Amino acid sequence: MVPLRGLQLLSLPDELLLQIVAFLEPLSIITLHHTCTRLRALTRSNAALWRNQCIKQAFIDSNPENCPQWNRAEELELVIDTWPHNDIDWPDDGSGPVRKVVTFFKPLRAQYRTMSEIYPACTLRQKVKVALCQFAAGTNKQANLNKASELVGQAVKNDAKIVVLPECFNSPYGTSHFANYAEAIPEHPTEEQSPTFHHLSSLALQHKIYLFGGSIPEADLEDPGKYYNTCLIFGPDGNFITKHRKVHLFDIDIPNEMTFKESDVLSPGKHITMVNTTYGPVAVGICYDIRFAEMAMVAARRGAALLLYPGAFSKFTGEMHWELLARARAVDNQIFVGVCSPARAEEGYVAWGESMLVDCKGRVMSKAGTGEEIVYAELDPENMENTRTHIPIRTQRRMEVYGDMMKVVPTEV
Amino acid sequence: MVPLRGLQLLSLPDELLLQIVAFLEPLSIITLHHTCTRLRALTRSNAALWRNQCIKQAFIDSNPENCPQWNRAEELELVIDTWPHNDIDWPDDGSGPVRKVVTFFKPLRAQYRTMSEIYPACTLRQKVKVALCQFAAGTNKQANLNKASELVGQAVKNDAKIVVLPECFNSPYGTSHFANYAEAIPEHPTEEQSPTFHHLSSLALQHKIYLFGGSIPEADLEDPGKYYNTCLIFGPDGNFITKHRKVHLFDIDIPNEMTFKESDVLSPGKHITMVNTTYGPVAVGICYDIRFAEMAMVAARRGAALLLYPGAFSKFTGEMHWELLARARAVDNQIFVGVCSPARAEEGYVAWGESMLVDCKGRVMSKAGTGEEIVYAELDPENMENTRTHIPIRTQRRMEVYGDMMKVVPTEV
Repeated sequence: MVPLRGLQLLSLPDELLLQIVAFLEPLSIITLHHTCTRLRALTRSNAALWRNQCIKQAFIDSNPENCPQWNRAEELELVIDTWPHNDIDWPDDGSGPVRKVVTFFKPLRAQYRTMSEIYPACTLRQKVKVALCQFAAGTNKQANLNKASELVGQAVKNDAKIVVLPECFNSPYGTSHFANYAEAIPEHPTEEQSPTFHHLSSLALQHKIYLFGGSIPEADLEDPGKYYNTCLIFGPDGNFITKHRKVHLFDIDIPNEMTFKESDVLSPGKHITMVNTTYGPVAVGICYDIRFAEMAMVAARRGAALLLYPGAFSKFTGEMHWELLARARAVDNQIFVGVCSPARAEEGYVAWGESMLVDCKGRVMSKAGTGEEIVYAELDPENMENTRTHIPIRTQRRMEVYGDMMKVVPTEV
Repeated sequence: MVPLRGLQLLSLPDELLLQIVAFLEPLSIITLHHTCTRLRALTRSNAALWRNQCIKQAFIDSNPENCPQWNRAEELELVIDTWPHNDIDWPDDGSGPVRKVVTFFKPLRAQYRTMSEIYPACTLRQKVKVALCQFAAGTNKQANLNKASELVGQAVKNDAKIVVLPECFNSPYGTSHFANYAEAIPEHPTEEQSPTFHHLSSLALQHKIYLFGGSIPEADLEDPGKYYNTCLIFGPDGNFITKHRKVHLFDIDIPNEMTFKESDVLSPGKHITMVNTTYGPVAVGICYDIRFAEMAMVAARRGAALLLYPGAFSKFTGEMHWELLARARAVDNQIFVGVCSPARAEEGYVAWGESMLVDCKGRVMSKAGTGEEIVYAELDPENMENTRTHIPIRTQRRMEVYGDMMKVVPTEV
């Protein structure tokens, strides 16, 4: 047993640092004490994890002296000084830190091969009930927010701890609407800047849930006229965790069926988004993002237990691909997947509906119809564990044949 | 317009070299004249393409002088001297070469981003009817070969030009059987070494078809006691094109349902296999290989138009995943997929059946039941083109967000 305290961080492989990030106990405050370029880089690249109110900063006392030990050690200890506070700043109430000791097992044989060894902690940590609220947004923003409140309240009554809203839930979906409904969302927006932000924050706090706010049109504060399709994520204390800006804009052209060009109005996001909840890491994509397998693969290999896609597939693409893509992401990555659609509207953009939750084996656990409805499923760590034990593709990848895609994922944001 | 003739090959990006390989006209013989390490490496890594009787060697007169021009050129010309022969050796009948000029458009804006720009030629080139022969192998090898002949003959009567046999078609499927049925398969095996090789070669020649010989147990000639699960592929002239050794061995353990450990007896292959047919490049995986999305992604990005998986999923995993995985590989890569199973047997290993062909949109075109049956589908370039034009994910990938997995694919074999 080698204490990580005093270990030269620069000698740690990226995977272990990521594992450390994921392993840190929710609701503890950890202060990054030492200047460590590499951990900083990782911190930035995993901004979503670190921005989570659960983890603010990490204190790791690095010392090059112990570096050689790492190479020989089979396991090591990380000494973390934590505070039971929820502030980003060093507490000034005179209270001392609580010392915690966490043991990591060194993924000696791993070398990117065995993801389950590299990310043992990055799975579903406990059972959790997830609710997807399927409803159609009208032209009245306040009415849309009220509808969200109503359905979230109902979901919570049914014990949901993670609640998801559909894509574009506070505005009609369409390039002509985005600018009119867009809100500016800096780190701390005013009520006027973003009523939706404050509405969602209150809902999360009131019900003590993780709230994945589907998506809303976001106005770029620094670059007027620039808009994003953005998901806001709040924790059980009402704190804003992070946002996901849709990475892949919906530009498709199927003659006689549908043509849509989000990029006429929207700009794309630049990041894969993952938040570390009490239950496990959750990654978020929006709608068209689901078509890009790499995004889900990267999230899963970074430890996501659940992938959420608020998405407004059309009737045409929905019938062809909605369920197939949700199940494909689940079966290939052996993670839970939730896709949350608006209800099918009578007029305007006609979304597909059929919001659903899929288990780690790719089986549909629950599925909505086309109308307003909440679908629920309890995610069970046993399902994930069974899947991964029975069909152990995570340990059977042949990186020497096709390479390890994780090696090209940009680490800097 | 810059002639590639006289271009320093070392200055060409891998993608263009791969494009050149894929672009070369079938049935022309091209002789590699110059010593060029890099092209050689690519040649080795794409051994399947080059081993194809269509392309033996490439003559490219390289000259460093013109190197700078490449950097400015928007398009370039490749001058190829070809012989209308089908011999690997330089013809000694005094006939001169036929000079061909092929124009390549430099994928200037591509940079791995736009696969359709990088590999314009690597798609389905013409309509072709594919047949999957679903039948169960018994204990009598000769009877199994005869059954294959019967079904292939029937498929050809129905105009199939690419015919596929199921996994383990000349032997019962099971770790206790592999060694007994295994055949040694050097480049030119004797009739005694591999009766199955010669049987398949004759069938391909007789019917002038591409024959994908499902799989058979292969004995390692140089390492006695070592076995592989191997697909032999023959061209319309009866020539052996290449073989695929199953890369991912089927080791799973689902309590009370099924436990199977191929690795007890078999060794894994080390390569992604692709052959360049008249109709377009075809990649091959065997059964459990289908679970590994990277393998299909690499093949598709290298230009595969069709992915074939002879595979004997069990009743349990077949019901859960057979169709889902076939459709997932198709929809994510916008290519055709064929999965060819043994018929469901009464005893021994019970395969799932339901061989099927899936189009580039992920839609099942035709699907067998569980008994002996041939399923057919005509692959149409229009289906591929429509899919890729309507939902252009191939040009919309955001490599700057998750990296380009093609950059880590080993190029050396």
